Amino acid sequence: MATMRVDGTPTRTIRPLANAQAVEIIDQTALPHEYRWLRLSSLEAAAQAIGSMQVRGAPLIGVTAAYGVALAMAQGDDDASLVVAVATLAATRPTAVNLRWALTRMQRCLAPLPAAARAAAAWQEAARIADEDVEQCRQIGKHGLQLLRRRAGGRGRLEIMTHCNAGWLATVDHGTALAPVYAAFDAGVDVHLWVSETRPRNQGLLTAWEVAQHGVPHTLVADNAAGLLLARGGIDAVIVGADRIAANGDVANKIGTYLKALAADAAAVPFYVAAPRSTIDFACPSGAAIPIEERAADELRIVHGRDASGVCGQLRQLPAGEDVANPAFDITPARLVGALITERGCCPASSEGLLALYPEERHG
Amino acid sequence: MATMRVDGTPTRTIRPLANAQAVEIIDQTALPHEYRWLRLSSLEAAAQAIGSMQVRGAPLIGVTAAYGVALAMAQGDDDASLVVAVATLAATRPTAVNLRWALTRMQRCLAPLPAAARAAAAWQEAARIADEDVEQCRQIGKHGLQLLRRRAGGRGRLEIMTHCNAGWLATVDHGTALAPVYAAFDAGVDVHLWVSETRPRNQGLLTAWEVAQHGVPHTLVADNAAGLLLARGGIDAVIVGADRIAANGDVANKIGTYLKALAADAAAVPFYVAAPRSTIDFACPSGAAIPIEERAADELRIVHGRDASGVCGQLRQLPAGEDVANPAFDITPARLVGALITERGCCPASSEGLLALYPEERHG
Repeated sequence: MATMRVDGTPTRTIRPLANAQAVEIIDQTALPHEYRWLRLSSLEAAAQAIGSMQVRGAPLIGVTAAYGVALAMAQGDDDASLVVAVATLAATRPTAVNLRWALTRMQRCLAPLPAAARAAAAWQEAARIADEDVEQCRQIGKHGLQLLRRRAGGRGRLEIMTHCNAGWLATVDHGTALAPVYAAFDAGVDVHLWVSETRPRNQGLLTAWEVAQHGVPHTLVADNAAGLLLARGGIDAVIVGADRIAANGDVANKIGTYLKALAADAAAVPFYVAAPRSTIDFACPSGAAIPIEERAADELRIVHGRDASGVCGQLRQLPAGEDVANPAFDITPARLVGALITERGCCPASSEGLLALYPEERHG
Repeated sequence: MATMRVDGTPTRTIRPLANAQAVEIIDQTALPHEYRWLRLSSLEAAAQAIGSMQVRGAPLIGVTAAYGVALAMAQGDDDASLVVAVATLAATRPTAVNLRWALTRMQRCLAPLPAAARAAAAWQEAARIADEDVEQCRQIGKHGLQLLRRRAGGRGRLEIMTHCNAGWLATVDHGTALAPVYAAFDAGVDVHLWVSETRPRNQGLLTAWEVAQHGVPHTLVADNAAGLLLARGGIDAVIVGADRIAANGDVANKIGTYLKALAADAAAVPFYVAAPRSTIDFACPSGAAIPIEERAADELRIVHGRDASGVCGQLRQLPAGEDVANPAFDITPARLVGALITERGCCPASSEGLLALYPEERHG
């Protein structure tokens, strides 16, 4: 079963229009206020959509980049075009390794082919990556559900906390962190989700919006509330996605994830990370080696002005001289991660755990 | 030396106009965009100003409540008026114990007096509370500076992280958490402050604004960034204020404080809490007994819509059906607090530590 959409019909988050040499995406900068599709018809448009976060979420970034290569091959299919396409897309965002993974795969697929065969092959390979993403997320849901059922135990209700958006909007379908939540809901488990705003980009509002489409009960909170909620008791598990998992099990994910992991640890609540193979970077020894994206200061500089009620008001800009730091990701050390949930099953967040699931990655 | 203000002249945050039977306050809901003073001429106006957070910060709430009693006594000085005034003001906010402390003190001062003497006595007592707040904050700055100097050691620069606003805007002058920062700056220490937005009310913008008036270098970050910044190294200390300190050293402060304390602990960075005597509740055995204020859902429901740049846009309202939880404070357990800084000096966050500073609170 696919997750439900706005119009009641299940649909993927990216629609290839190979005949039109374009793809359509949901403009996630307009959500949750407006649900609209955007057509991307060039390499440049694909790169712009990723960089500006019109598409976001590590798996969907990877799939969009793959289609970006296909769009580029329609514009020019020589070796130089392929190199430029890969370099342009790789430069959009540094942390999510799925981007690099998808580009490497596209390059390996296309480089040996004669130029004239590349455009068609690129569409096919991008479609394969998208199909695999859907199936991997479905498997993550299945494996994660087993973990959640164990946490539910005899209690009538399952209280899950998440961070950012790692749902179907962040993938082609199902989601990563939210796949087990949807699976639990669809299996009749009485599941309730705690959703953090996820400043500064408010991806928590995407999560609230997308789970509302599927009917999953949920409550929106400020990021700051996570510590109190966990310390009070009543949260059964925290599940997040990942932008990169290092070979030792350290996890890069949306800024603020690490704070939730610390609070879950202090409250003895399990902290799970759900991600497909494409998020695991076996070449990256630990979290310290993961590059952390620094995003535009304006994401923080534009804030509410409040009226006398203290609530409403208008958007105001902070003085330009106001210094801002805006790192977009943080590193959760493996010791705080209770389990990794991948398409192959669950494992401890460690090199042993990862290599047991992916023995083909053992070298020497 | 007082902290510097907008117009370059030091001034307190609350101005009694006894002859006019009014007080003037800075409307903190308009900051940092607009610096304006509001005149409060009645009990109801004072209660409204506290409840709507036009004045905020535990010490300033206490002082404003004291003046609120004075305004009430000008409206009616009989026993019933006094009881109503205290009850009305006490109901505005539940967590900051300075409010209750100031009201109890006003009641003890006024109740024994003949009705006709109360109005004048109330103004005098409120002024005394305000004067004491200034002096206590000055002492907190002095004692905190000694701690900071030790942290600075041989390094050329002192990197301090804070949360919410516990500066001069939160007190009558100097601040609590920021008093040592101002003292360090004024003593020529090269101090730099990391300021968190403090969602949902963005009191971090007040902090950025007020330290800018004084010239203190600072950087604004999302609340979510605190974990990464601490884990990266380079933060020498975290200093926050408090809304209530229990007898065992547990600290209630703005929601999100506990997450910073966890991250500081994990990074072996000292976490200090600065507050005057009026914030310590010796009658409250531990953090579990502190009531946590739940504020209006609209503080979270009104959010940015973004334009295609993903940054600007307009304010939008989430669907009314969107469930929101908005606890305004959390509890940091004493074990995470490196030291309490009060007007009498620094002490461990424990009942022994507190009773050593306040031996008059030993009973039996």
